[in-house]
Amino acid sequence: MDYSKIFAQAIDRLHAEGRYRVFIDILRNKGSFPNARCFAGHNGPKPITVWCSNDYLAMGQHSSVIAAMEEALHDVGAGSGGTRNIGGNTHYHVDLEAELADLHGKEAALLFTSGYISNEATLSTLGKLLPGCVIFSDELNHASMIAGIRTSGCEKRVFRHNDLAHLEELLAQADPDAPKLIAFESVYSMDGDVAPIAAICDLADRYNAITYLDEVHAVGMYGARGGGISERDDVAHRLTIIEGTLGKAFGVMGGYIAADRNIVDVIRSYAPGFIFTTSLSPVLVAGALASVRHLKASSAEREGQQAAAATLKAIFAEAGLPVMASTTHIVPLMVGDPVKAKKISDILLAEYGVYVQPINYPTVPRGTERLRFTPGPSHTHAMMRELAGALVEIWDRLELRVAA
Amino acid sequence: MDYSKIFAQAIDRLHAEGRYRVFIDILRNKGSFPNARCFAGHNGPKPITVWCSNDYLAMGQHSSVIAAMEEALHDVGAGSGGTRNIGGNTHYHVDLEAELADLHGKEAALLFTSGYISNEATLSTLGKLLPGCVIFSDELNHASMIAGIRTSGCEKRVFRHNDLAHLEELLAQADPDAPKLIAFESVYSMDGDVAPIAAICDLADRYNAITYLDEVHAVGMYGARGGGISERDDVAHRLTIIEGTLGKAFGVMGGYIAADRNIVDVIRSYAPGFIFTTSLSPVLVAGALASVRHLKASSAEREGQQAAAATLKAIFAEAGLPVMASTTHIVPLMVGDPVKAKKISDILLAEYGVYVQPINYPTVPRGTERLRFTPGPSHTHAMMRELAGALVEIWDRLELRVAA
Repeated sequence: MDYSKIFAQAIDRLHAEGRYRVFIDILRNKGSFPNARCFAGHNGPKPITVWCSNDYLAMGQHSSVIAAMEEALHDVGAGSGGTRNIGGNTHYHVDLEAELADLHGKEAALLFTSGYISNEATLSTLGKLLPGCVIFSDELNHASMIAGIRTSGCEKRVFRHNDLAHLEELLAQADPDAPKLIAFESVYSMDGDVAPIAAICDLADRYNAITYLDEVHAVGMYGARGGGISERDDVAHRLTIIEGTLGKAFGVMGGYIAADRNIVDVIRSYAPGFIFTTSLSPVLVAGALASVRHLKASSAEREGQQAAAATLKAIFAEAGLPVMASTTHIVPLMVGDPVKAKKISDILLAEYGVYVQPINYPTVPRGTERLRFTPGPSHTHAMMRELAGALVEIWDRLELRVAA
Repeated sequence: MDYSKIFAQAIDRLHAEGRYRVFIDILRNKGSFPNARCFAGHNGPKPITVWCSNDYLAMGQHSSVIAAMEEALHDVGAGSGGTRNIGGNTHYHVDLEAELADLHGKEAALLFTSGYISNEATLSTLGKLLPGCVIFSDELNHASMIAGIRTSGCEKRVFRHNDLAHLEELLAQADPDAPKLIAFESVYSMDGDVAPIAAICDLADRYNAITYLDEVHAVGMYGARGGGISERDDVAHRLTIIEGTLGKAFGVMGGYIAADRNIVDVIRSYAPGFIFTTSLSPVLVAGALASVRHLKASSAEREGQQAAAATLKAIFAEAGLPVMASTTHIVPLMVGDPVKAKKISDILLAEYGVYVQPINYPTVPRGTERLRFTPGPSHTHAMMRELAGALVEIWDRLELRVAA
């Protein structure tokens, strides 16, 4: 048994497919987002513009968030020092959970160390607590939901992306007496489209299923108080569980669920991924609390971001670039090849100081490799025009342009 | 299908067994650890002494850690804004991975959002990459290792705790040509005993197995530079993978593995729990970097902690309290009943301002419920004598004392 050879072959397969990942080494400049410094492969840090951050609203650099984190750092220190049950339950955690429950109009909320683990832990635990449960999962659900569903041991039925007829067909085929859970996302982050939440809730009612909605790319971004698409569409009360993140629009780190008190208590009490882990640093929790509170009261960041996304889409379309049909703040350009996607990204960084990561398999299906832009309220029109100019030049250079 | 009833019954089962968990709501006082404030059930915060923190060396309140986090907060902001691959790879991450690789004498290291996810992601991915792999797992391994092994889909053989003869028996039974992985911990945190690492490495050599050692309760605490028991015993070079945490002795949050370059590259490239999650906040990474560097150079905290643990064990033994046979910094008192363990903890908090959490199933096996004390360099002899006095009084009050 030659272990080294097996591991080397696994790496070789990635190189052969052109999807070996090179992490770009950066530091963002606080106070002047989207400006940053890039380290690797240069003599000293080089200034760049970041176009692929999920800190969509630049809240990670907001003065109220920074001030709250600084205060917590000086009041209680760096880490929590334990699991939620053993010494790691700070007053910040309790306050943030109350704030998140209120944000989604639910009785309770529960914090996790990440959005990934909130999906994994909640879905796997729900499935184990509901004997015979069948889980209906959108085919484009995030890897963390797929991981949770697999660990649950439940029967999984995958429905075609946002396809209500297919979902209903699968629901109708299942045993009427079996517990049923429909797991889906509001904003699908690689395409930028949105689920028909109300219609899915109608089906859930009809077939007595509970619902699990991942809003990680929507919380802070949509709805009058940043409660996500479920707030915007006025359907939050119809969903059994809403899951969100503190690491994207809220600008910090961590994940959570919001639901009725008993469900939160069950997950809190039974989920290994919640129980057996050091709780979120109180410094992060304090920052997230400030961010959630700010975005409940202020819509300026959301409006600025939506305007930036609309402008960039228009500029790309006008330049003849293959912008995909996103209805949200995500602006993806289709490339359809992992090697070319990486090549475009490399040229942008080396020649134009533009940082946008190529999105390859397994993050998107093979053949749909793309560049994914996330313009924020701080990206100016001048930056956008410069970006489009660079892309047109590279598209020509690599002979990517399709005939009109 | 009445979902509410099923969830309510799940909660009722916990109450019936006396192991429903109530999180104690606290804020630690930075600069005066182990002092803290307790919130729930009181009129305003009440001063308490924390005896169950895993911030063993109080590094979460160390001036160098706080200063580094403050600097990062002002330099780059709150969150990383993305996965390691998409915008979330900061220069701090790169530096800390190099520091951790050096700490364990390995070629490379990889950060995760928690120790839980580092175990889960690494073990599950290794198992999937080694077809037909058999995983040999100590019966007291942490829940996160068990989760990773289950997800790997590999055949699992559980050996009796620290039992070399049983491990060898199982190794000898397995197909000689199958890949084999031995997964174990150095310090078992609920009992405080230590694995015979060198002897396990001997068996690994004999049966051509790779080894995975969880050092989360030992990094920062043992070895001349805080490299853990594997450094103290001079066996780090014999282990295939060493896993650690930034959330206990290092006082911050996050997990990591250290191994040879190819193994780290494989996990980095294939593990969903690493790939699909927002990376650690640069603020945390900066704090962890300062903490790791400090504990590489300074042994004063380790020595103070070891002295405190030895003193507390002696004081407990002298007072006739049932202190368990720990050979490490952990000081557990056996109770053997979940209701009584919680009762003792409640009295300590309400009447004595002492916070120590009862440790019940599933954290320890049923019938071995206990109190687990983690004295640190800042717990004074006077505090220890006061604690022992309180425990003797409660032990008498609850008629727990066994005949001598």
